[in-house]
Amino acid sequence: MKTAFVMSYLGTAYHGWQRQKNALTVQEVMEETLARLCARRPAVSGCGRTDAGVHAEYYVASADIETGVPLDRMPLALGSLLPKDVSVRRAIAVPEDFDARFSCKSKEYTYRIHNSRVRDPFYADRAYFFPQRLDERAMAEAAQGFVGKRDFAAVKSEGSPVKSTVRTVEYCRVRREGDMVLVSVRADGFLYNMVRAITGTLIYCGIGKLSPQDVPLLLAGGRREDTGPTAPACGLYMTDAFYGMEELDGQAGGAGK
Amino acid sequence: MKTAFVMSYLGTAYHGWQRQKNALTVQEVMEETLARLCARRPAVSGCGRTDAGVHAEYYVASADIETGVPLDRMPLALGSLLPKDVSVRRAIAVPEDFDARFSCKSKEYTYRIHNSRVRDPFYADRAYFFPQRLDERAMAEAAQGFVGKRDFAAVKSEGSPVKSTVRTVEYCRVRREGDMVLVSVRADGFLYNMVRAITGTLIYCGIGKLSPQDVPLLLAGGRREDTGPTAPACGLYMTDAFYGMEELDGQAGGAGK
Repeated sequence: MKTAFVMSYLGTAYHGWQRQKNALTVQEVMEETLARLCARRPAVSGCGRTDAGVHAEYYVASADIETGVPLDRMPLALGSLLPKDVSVRRAIAVPEDFDARFSCKSKEYTYRIHNSRVRDPFYADRAYFFPQRLDERAMAEAAQGFVGKRDFAAVKSEGSPVKSTVRTVEYCRVRREGDMVLVSVRADGFLYNMVRAITGTLIYCGIGKLSPQDVPLLLAGGRREDTGPTAPACGLYMTDAFYGMEELDGQAGGAGK
Repeated sequence: MKTAFVMSYLGTAYHGWQRQKNALTVQEVMEETLARLCARRPAVSGCGRTDAGVHAEYYVASADIETGVPLDRMPLALGSLLPKDVSVRRAIAVPEDFDARFSCKSKEYTYRIHNSRVRDPFYADRAYFFPQRLDERAMAEAAQGFVGKRDFAAVKSEGSPVKSTVRTVEYCRVRREGDMVLVSVRADGFLYNMVRAITGTLIYCGIGKLSPQDVPLLLAGGRREDTGPTAPACGLYMTDAFYGMEELDGQAGGAGK
């Protein structure tokens, strides 16, 4: 039975989502844990390939499983088997052709910048500590330059070949909550390190190293070396995945701090 | 120069505050780190002896230091030397007879219970996961039984001999924030594991195993075995320390999640 799992995980201890030969990943943990409840080990598909150290407040995975455990019991059953930094919040029956990766229409990532003169131990590995004061208004203005159907080659890291670097960003928002500055980006797809490069570019706008008016020009130029640095993985969270299905959507947020 | 340090720490990796021979403690970390900025290694006094795994959002330490670092630079200077799970938020000049432990008039601890059917990986080691539904109204009513000048022997663990088990609890409050139930206790002093035993007793009231009316009787009885279990260390936070000094007080909260 094809099943979707709404998950959360703290990525600090993992080399990202996707299975690797010599490093622990969330996909491997999920597959091995499901194997203990199912007749055979299922292949688990995930809505995005998060990098090492990246977190997920709202992550959707899917697998074809055969198990005697009722779906509404799955969160508890998996909860007792999964490590404490991974949890399954809901398990939902989905059509046979559903795939967490390929059926996904859009996703939201949120980047957390702890903008304070003093480190906060409770944010270690959970936000990017940036002590220089950020002008969140300049950042919010600059963020508008990333919205729309555009070529995002200028905010893509080397490493994973793609056919096209054109993506559609639905929104790119910056807001401040006390000493936390949050960057939220929703798009139909993301290039490698795209949100982290967008955030690095917005930080440059927030300290006056770039102006908001520069962003459209830099994007049009398409050169990674012209935009800001790639912000570190620890501040990045997957915060939503959208499938156009009532059972799966509109449930975002919740977990993260 | 006698100096007070307002600190925060995530206690997960430490065997509490107080220096021990064969285990890492926050006091040791603080003394060794200050030693790198000072002419000689200072003895650091702390406002409370938190246990292994207990956290501090607001903790006050004091030491007599000789250093060339101006006090307003201390948080940054220490921040670059301290491990990422400990931070100094402010350093304040205090009278020579100030001592973070003995000058402290009252302290507040807050206990966090994650009351949800499903674990949240972001709360691992930071809250007590308690999946059975808690009645926070019964807990709040029961909490009133702990307020006042009373003998708290019934909520004290064995292990540290004290002259008197009488303490004055200024308030004991329970509130729910979504799926988090918080217990805040302010007192002029705390017995060993007192807040954790109070919390365990309140949890028993929250699941109907004890009634709020039982609390005064159990306290009067003075027998530890009659009250609830000691809630685990990971949910406990020191959240305030009060000295009757303008520079130090009224700055609580802030850090914690």
